[in-house]
Amino acid sequence: LRAKAPASAGRWVVSFPFRDTLRRMDFRSDNTHGCSPEIVEALARAAHGSVSSYGSDPYTDRLRERCRELFERDVDIFPVMTGTAGNALAIASLTPPWGTVFCTPEAHIHRDELGAAEFFSGGCTVIPTDDLASAIPLAAVPACVSATNATESGVVLDPAAVAELSMHRLRVHIDGARFANAVAASGASPADLTWRAGVDVLVFGGTKNGCMGVELIVLFRRELAQELTYRWHRAGHRVSKMRFLSAQFEAYLTDDLWLRNARHANAMAARLAGGLRGVAGVEIVREVQANIVFVRVAPRLRALFANAGYDWPLFGDDVYRLVTGFGTTEGEVDQFLAAIPSS
Amino acid sequence: LRAKAPASAGRWVVSFPFRDTLRRMDFRSDNTHGCSPEIVEALARAAHGSVSSYGSDPYTDRLRERCRELFERDVDIFPVMTGTAGNALAIASLTPPWGTVFCTPEAHIHRDELGAAEFFSGGCTVIPTDDLASAIPLAAVPACVSATNATESGVVLDPAAVAELSMHRLRVHIDGARFANAVAASGASPADLTWRAGVDVLVFGGTKNGCMGVELIVLFRRELAQELTYRWHRAGHRVSKMRFLSAQFEAYLTDDLWLRNARHANAMAARLAGGLRGVAGVEIVREVQANIVFVRVAPRLRALFANAGYDWPLFGDDVYRLVTGFGTTEGEVDQFLAAIPSS
Amino acid sequence: LRAKAPASAGRWVVSFPFRDTLRRMDFRSDNTHGCSPEIVEALARAAHGSVSSYGSDPYTDRLRERCRELFERDVDIFPVMTGTAGNALAIASLTPPWGTVFCTPEAHIHRDELGAAEFFSGGCTVIPTDDLASAIPLAAVPACVSATNATESGVVLDPAAVAELSMHRLRVHIDGARFANAVAASGASPADLTWRAGVDVLVFGGTKNGCMGVELIVLFRRELAQELTYRWHRAGHRVSKMRFLSAQFEAYLTDDLWLRNARHANAMAARLAGGLRGVAGVEIVREVQANIVFVRVAPRLRALFANAGYDWPLFGDDVYRLVTGFGTTEGEVDQFLAAIPSS
Amino acid sequence: LRAKAPASAGRWVVSFPFRDTLRRMDFRSDNTHGCSPEIVEALARAAHGSVSSYGSDPYTDRLRERCRELFERDVDIFPVMTGTAGNALAIASLTPPWGTVFCTPEAHIHRDELGAAEFFSGGCTVIPTDDLASAIPLAAVPACVSATNATESGVVLDPAAVAELSMHRLRVHIDGARFANAVAASGASPADLTWRAGVDVLVFGGTKNGCMGVELIVLFRRELAQELTYRWHRAGHRVSKMRFLSAQFEAYLTDDLWLRNARHANAMAARLAGGLRGVAGVEIVREVQANIVFVRVAPRLRALFANAGYDWPLFGDDVYRLVTGFGTTEGEVDQFLAAIPSS
Repeated sequence: LRAKAPASAGRWVVSFPFRDTLRRMDFRSDNTHGCSPEIVEALARAAHGSVSSYGSDPYTDRLRERCRELFERDVDIFPVMTGTAGNALAIASLTPPWGTVFCTPEAHIHRDELGAAEFFSGGCTVIPTDDLASAIPLAAVPACVSATNATESGVVLDPAAVAELSMHRLRVHIDGARFANAVAASGASPADLTWRAGVDVLVFGGTKNGCMGVELIVLFRRELAQELTYRWHRAGHRVSKMRFLSAQFEAYLTDDLWLRNARHANAMAARLAGGLRGVAGVEIVREVQANIVFVRVAPRLRALFANAGYDWPLFGDDVYRLVTGFGTTEGEVDQFLAAIPSS
Repeated sequence: LRAKAPASAGRWVVSFPFRDTLRRMDFRSDNTHGCSPEIVEALARAAHGSVSSYGSDPYTDRLRERCRELFERDVDIFPVMTGTAGNALAIASLTPPWGTVFCTPEAHIHRDELGAAEFFSGGCTVIPTDDLASAIPLAAVPACVSATNATESGVVLDPAAVAELSMHRLRVHIDGARFANAVAASGASPADLTWRAGVDVLVFGGTKNGCMGVELIVLFRRELAQELTYRWHRAGHRVSKMRFLSAQFEAYLTDDLWLRNARHANAMAARLAGGLRGVAGVEIVREVQANIVFVRVAPRLRALFANAGYDWPLFGDDVYRLVTGFGTTEGEVDQFLAAIPSS
Repeated sequence: LRAKAPASAGRWVVSFPFRDTLRRMDFRSDNTHGCSPEIVEALARAAHGSVSSYGSDPYTDRLRERCRELFERDVDIFPVMTGTAGNALAIASLTPPWGTVFCTPEAHIHRDELGAAEFFSGGCTVIPTDDLASAIPLAAVPACVSATNATESGVVLDPAAVAELSMHRLRVHIDGARFANAVAASGASPADLTWRAGVDVLVFGGTKNGCMGVELIVLFRRELAQELTYRWHRAGHRVSKMRFLSAQFEAYLTDDLWLRNARHANAMAARLAGGLRGVAGVEIVREVQANIVFVRVAPRLRALFANAGYDWPLFGDDVYRLVTGFGTTEGEVDQFLAAIPSS
Repeated sequence: LRAKAPASAGRWVVSFPFRDTLRRMDFRSDNTHGCSPEIVEALARAAHGSVSSYGSDPYTDRLRERCRELFERDVDIFPVMTGTAGNALAIASLTPPWGTVFCTPEAHIHRDELGAAEFFSGGCTVIPTDDLASAIPLAAVPACVSATNATESGVVLDPAAVAELSMHRLRVHIDGARFANAVAASGASPADLTWRAGVDVLVFGGTKNGCMGVELIVLFRRELAQELTYRWHRAGHRVSKMRFLSAQFEAYLTDDLWLRNARHANAMAARLAGGLRGVAGVEIVREVQANIVFVRVAPRLRALFANAGYDWPLFGDDVYRLVTGFGTTEGEVDQFLAAIPSS
């Protein structure tokens, strides 16, 4: 979540009306991009005819089958429109209202979702920590570990790292807003990055990686499906014309569109980072493993980077985040690099 | 909400996986239809380029302007994917957690949303009643009247009927899942059916009437906009690529698509009702004003009607609901009428 | 809940500061009385020495044993300070957040607790109805029947009537704010009025019948005990010095204090009703089975009855409620009867 | 909150039934003590006669007047039974559901209340931090600072330290479970420690310091009183026979009972700490300012200290907490000191 706030107050303010125009050299987020043509085509095909609503349709049936192949086991699926919805619904199904959920200090569920997990779960506690082993024993009712992969820092967790999260005998949720980027970068299989490493539920992102707006809750614990169905419905996230979410995700998983898009985004970040390395006044402050580049820049470059990306105070003063996406072109990257004045 | 339940238990059960095929002569609901080609085209046009996320985009700006013209005054807008989301967010902004919300016994918020209003508001009480004047004084903290227009019974409220709802000095919410049908049927202006009649917030439906999936919360009380923005976001209903919701609704309001679709649906219901009148064994049990027809049928016709529509126990045994939509053709109506055996 | 409200608005208003003095001939409620001397003595005895907090104390242990004898089976107990707390905690343990709870239109949980059940359960729906058999099949997720015994109307349910409530295969909660009055009036055993008739949880009232402030959640389903313990604690209802609640209830159950107090209150209501019968301008509008008398009075008597009791619009215009308690004396009753002017 | 938990899992487990006996040399908590005789006497006096319920009684009126004198200004008061209730209700009135509340890592609201603040507020985020200035700007909607005085570490905040908490332009809540100990130790006035230092609401503890069970929410912002009244009632914390809470607190404030008890408890802690200083194998790890002593002990002493107090892993291995109370005698302290074996 990024909204302009008064520097002094730290408050999250939303002003109406918004003003914006189409942008070029836009590395603010992977959600400023449009969508892949395959997604539009799938929606156009799905626009005809009459099918049952609320998920009882052939599109959703086919998507479920496709997921069962991809994850190499039985799964239940719940398409939703946003990552916040997916995360909050998933976490609510993994913790009682009095439970504690552990995440990293930079986790989206902690920083950017305005307490959605607390709201959906009926008041759980979310504790940001970099030290699970110390934090868990201090909690009254430890319930769930929530991790993001690829992380908000642009780091990719491999199967061993995911498995370590599940060593604490708590339930495990993966915020996979950039799961495709993690699979593309790690080369690990979806199964190895999830249930084989102890994950209970994955929110498999589509929106940031070429879809119009769909995230898929992939549930690996069948016994939670009925309850999650109720939560999904009463939260207003079970859309009536579900074919239009399922058709998007089906197209996304067809012919490896999800992986092709993610590989491209990752490659663009690598290209951008490669170009930034050695530029005077630019320091790359996190290893670039997926599609995000964090840089600390000299004062003379701040306006340029502030326009192209977001300032990122969590990682320090003068730090900016640049994100590439499926729609980023080599030309945009090169144009941005060329725009950096040499001292 | 319609899911097959064991007749004896009355429980709402969701079974996985769902089975369905494309249907013909489908009068189950207006959400079994696909979407209008204008909507697909608008989405295709919006798929390109980079814009700000979360509503700071030109599509949403234009939609807001368009709404201000349509409603003849300043409004704030909040696009969401589902009517349940729109209703629950709107109601939560009109009642404190300890308030009472009044609706009709057949209201969607009462029957079909699994307690979404109670959830989003932090535990409000929802009281179904046909007698507002008697019910309101008995409540501890009366807060809000919620009405549907066109109603779930297919009745259209005219401006005077809406104004009567606002006589109780409570806040007023309109569930406008079929608002277009109400405007088309009544001939009243959107302004006359809402804020001029005392309405505080309208959930203006698009999904049932030709969109893929978008409902628009139209807020007539500016002072509630900031809080509603927070609620919208933390409920996971503020989509990042909002252009794809706004573009749908913009197309919906362009060249009167919304009214054309609604008029067609209403006309198909009239055609259907006209054909059913006088058929032996069929009794029309509610006046047909919009796009819904309720009939009580003789035993020999039950299987036919159960297949075409839904049984509707709220209105009595052997009662079925038939809904027409923007996608219903004259041919389908006539084909269905022809399929009714004459004793 | 009774607070003076502007007649026109029906709103529940609380004004500060309150003004009151000690009253005589007070039939407003059984919670305007003080407490029995045995309760004070028990508290005085418990005031000494050091014991574990939060329920791990010998007072609570003894109370649990005493309850097991009284109910003729194993039970778990959770002392709380108020009936609202007891009811809301109990109901929250019997319904999921998306469930529907059924009660009577006059139920305290519906009229007087400001949505406590909705709040504690995470947003359940509470439906007031006099016709369970019709209402249950219409609900999406029927979860729980909540009944009061003796009822808010002063009616006593016998074991057969309670058993009928549990015929619907839903969980059953009894609001026993006046459970003692029901036992005293019916002569049925606590076991026969609860678990043997299918009740899952009873809130056994002490406050209205001679205690200072304690209600006992008596849980007949052991598998819900752990979860209820968490709910109890996080709602702030698990008092640290629990001995002071347990000691009250232990004294209440000792030497039949609870039954003696209830029999007295019931007898005083019978005496009051007996005196009112045949008085010109007074009509008893509900059968008097416990300690509440509802009367419709002629205009000339309204001021007198409004001062002694509460007006009760739920039962019609000019209806007043008179409640007797453990502290009501024959003298007070007779004095009130004598104060009624004979036309 | 202290319940025996399996060492490995860190889970908060409650087992039934509890076992305990009267203890001597009990430094586990100030809530293991009984209550002062003045409290019992006040309750005995209040046990007679009929008064209005829910706070409209002369006891509560007098208590409010007494508080206005004590705090040297107008205040609203809300008696409750537990600190968890007081804290959660107070915080819920200071933050929107989407707000962030900041507290210290050892705060009771964070460690011991099972998410009560999150529950009562409708899902706020509670962030434990020792660095307010850094944490506040990172939160989306900073709302409230919650501090404890005296703290859970036994530290006393003086007016300047409290005023510093209110420098951030957020609302300020004080958990005053040991407020009396803070006043006694600092010598500052109640007004200087609260509203004059920017505090919006205080939960003034009675239970730990000689009452049976009453905490007083003291509200310094009149405009929040109506809403807090609703919250108080629907949470089941507005007891019907409120005279029995108000009478306790009135007696507590009479003839400085609250200060006398607190001074005694503080003196006993000083005596205990004095005796422990210089004992081989015992290290006092926090400055002793109020009635709590934290010590790190050598292995040979662990059983003794584990029996007398609680282990306190938050402050490190082998650390124990010893708490004195109004009921602690010099003899008990000396007896405990004498029981420590000299190597």
